[in-house]
Amino acid sequence: MKRHIIGLVILMLTFSSWSCLAQTDQPTVKEDFNPSSTSQPGKEYPQVNSEGRVRTSISAPEAHKVLLDIGGVKFDMTKDENGVWTGDSDPQDPGFHYYQMWVDGAAVPDPNSLYFYGAGRWGSGVEVPCDDQDFFALKNVPHGQVREQLYYSQITEKWRRCFVYTPPDYEQNVSARYPVLYLQHGSFEDETGWANQGKANLILDNLIADKKAVPMIIVMDNGYAMKPSRGADAPRRGPGMFSAFEDVLIKEVIPMIDASYRTIADREHRAMAGLSMGANQTIRITMNNLDMFSHIGGFSGTSNYPSPDKIDRAAFMDGKFKDGKALGKKIKLFWLGMGTKEPNPFPGSIAAFREMLDEAGMKHVYYESPGTAHEWLTWRRSLYQFSPLLFR
Amino acid sequence: MKRHIIGLVILMLTFSSWSCLAQTDQPTVKEDFNPSSTSQPGKEYPQVNSEGRVRTSISAPEAHKVLLDIGGVKFDMTKDENGVWTGDSDPQDPGFHYYQMWVDGAAVPDPNSLYFYGAGRWGSGVEVPCDDQDFFALKNVPHGQVREQLYYSQITEKWRRCFVYTPPDYEQNVSARYPVLYLQHGSFEDETGWANQGKANLILDNLIADKKAVPMIIVMDNGYAMKPSRGADAPRRGPGMFSAFEDVLIKEVIPMIDASYRTIADREHRAMAGLSMGANQTIRITMNNLDMFSHIGGFSGTSNYPSPDKIDRAAFMDGKFKDGKALGKKIKLFWLGMGTKEPNPFPGSIAAFREMLDEAGMKHVYYESPGTAHEWLTWRRSLYQFSPLLFR
Repeated sequence: MKRHIIGLVILMLTFSSWSCLAQTDQPTVKEDFNPSSTSQPGKEYPQVNSEGRVRTSISAPEAHKVLLDIGGVKFDMTKDENGVWTGDSDPQDPGFHYYQMWVDGAAVPDPNSLYFYGAGRWGSGVEVPCDDQDFFALKNVPHGQVREQLYYSQITEKWRRCFVYTPPDYEQNVSARYPVLYLQHGSFEDETGWANQGKANLILDNLIADKKAVPMIIVMDNGYAMKPSRGADAPRRGPGMFSAFEDVLIKEVIPMIDASYRTIADREHRAMAGLSMGANQTIRITMNNLDMFSHIGGFSGTSNYPSPDKIDRAAFMDGKFKDGKALGKKIKLFWLGMGTKEPNPFPGSIAAFREMLDEAGMKHVYYESPGTAHEWLTWRRSLYQFSPLLFR
Repeated sequence: MKRHIIGLVILMLTFSSWSCLAQTDQPTVKEDFNPSSTSQPGKEYPQVNSEGRVRTSISAPEAHKVLLDIGGVKFDMTKDENGVWTGDSDPQDPGFHYYQMWVDGAAVPDPNSLYFYGAGRWGSGVEVPCDDQDFFALKNVPHGQVREQLYYSQITEKWRRCFVYTPPDYEQNVSARYPVLYLQHGSFEDETGWANQGKANLILDNLIADKKAVPMIIVMDNGYAMKPSRGADAPRRGPGMFSAFEDVLIKEVIPMIDASYRTIADREHRAMAGLSMGANQTIRITMNNLDMFSHIGGFSGTSNYPSPDKIDRAAFMDGKFKDGKALGKKIKLFWLGMGTKEPNPFPGSIAAFREMLDEAGMKHVYYESPGTAHEWLTWRRSLYQFSPLLFR
């Protein structure tokens, strides 16, 4: 009995201390924070610790509530005696994340961070270090250039812009011609994404220096293109417009690039890849134009998005995948990849698409990025895996 | 006497109405606002009206005080029933202005604007239309490219970046070689300024299309360069470092550019210009290296900054301006310019420098930008005036 009473007391003490823990709810935060690579020059925040927690700080002496909002999850920040608010997020996945701050109900960029276009706006981004970051690091290897290319689009009746990566030897080797990869961003992103947060230029500089990828040109355009509709009452903006990206790419961008750069202008030396919405666009555009493309990459997306249902090959995309073996003779590389932590509907729809390829007898390469979701580290790793297989 | 009383009453009524005006202090604002060219895609703010007033808007339902801060002057914003704050500035000079917002004491970028590097941070900018904006407009003319060029600096032991403008025919005319203008930003700005808010590429595209300027390469580097000091106790950061920009430019950037681009690598085909701090650097660096430069441009700055005192030619810059006539044989163009509304100390120090040139017998071209202060429209206009005179 005595033993039972002692046992009960221990049990009660245990619950009691659990209860205290639950009430205070203070996680033990490792105090090994360092400024992120996306902090503005001379700024000490945002910071990241070895657990992947993000810490931000802002002076707001008259504010009553300041929050850090990362991936749509809000974290309270607390004010010190000088009116400076500081707060930490939960541990984040390694890689790049968009975030913002809320000051008394106003959603604003963090004044300490660099800014990136994504989530439909120019705003803050933070980089959580990852074990394999050497592959996109700025290293002492020959570097290519990223060029801003302006062009007028007759189809959209607008000036448009793309960024063009030229490989390190492009300016030295002036008689050489190069294959081209057309590389697209995702929804609510734009033509700046792949060279800024995507690190496409550094990934290729490093691969080319290691002789793991052949020198290539990469064209990063804006995947949004609207054709103005015609007629007296036709709206010039809004839902009355329709997407013209395929037309812009095929009829305007590719001819402009082939005329302006030393490309090898045939289907064997032309690839297309994209992430999320860009993957959906890539598969549709390349399959509609197999006389122009031979290498296809879908990063975290497929053209059956968002459905996880089994694909009817006879009907899907006008039956373009009916005869996979015939396709396999034309398509030199069909590459698909995603992160192991991708949310729905990506795992389901990508799995259904892969099953359809298998049933058609169309070979494909599949890659999974460990521990990452629908974010840029998945796509950096996808480019790193995909581009060495091009133009072989 | 009656006349005197009537006069007094009129005087009192007049003062009384003045007094009413001062109490209400509501300016009549013209309601012809349009989104600025620096609004983010799809955003309706910031806006500007025909008076040059800037209107911003932000949702901040729980905030108690929100201000628009433009050029260091703060303007109250007011909250509507939905928690959206809106406010106008006083009329601004035409051209580009940095600004920010204050939400309950927090200085933040406007979430609706594009972001620019200046005033020592990435933050908001707004464009107030000007009568002569056609010279920097994106027009249907052949366009050059702006290239991001990474390079490792042995002197600073750091990776650095410059932007390089190549003229429209550079990729077509692959045997042609081009003169080079080195073009520098001002203090608290960086290598992104001239191609973003400076519109240097569009200004040259337009001038070259009109055959008013010869096709040239423009190199826009970062004017801050620190050499790490040596010794066991030597600080690796902060005031213990010293400026090495002249060394970096002369020993690293120019050789790298001449090796990487099809330049005409002699003094007759090399120019340097800069704004404010960049003008000061330009005059010092070109005068120290007259074997390398033949054309010099100082936009809103001179090397006697900030002093308005008469310059002693025998002592100033080690007597480099003693013999202006001999200098005049080496220097093909010495160009100075500023805005008519520049604040002190610029008008005084630039006037003293010009007087020194005149007394030395060194000819120079002088330009004044009408109605602009120490801001980007002054510098866009300066580049537009200066570059047609180069390499003739």
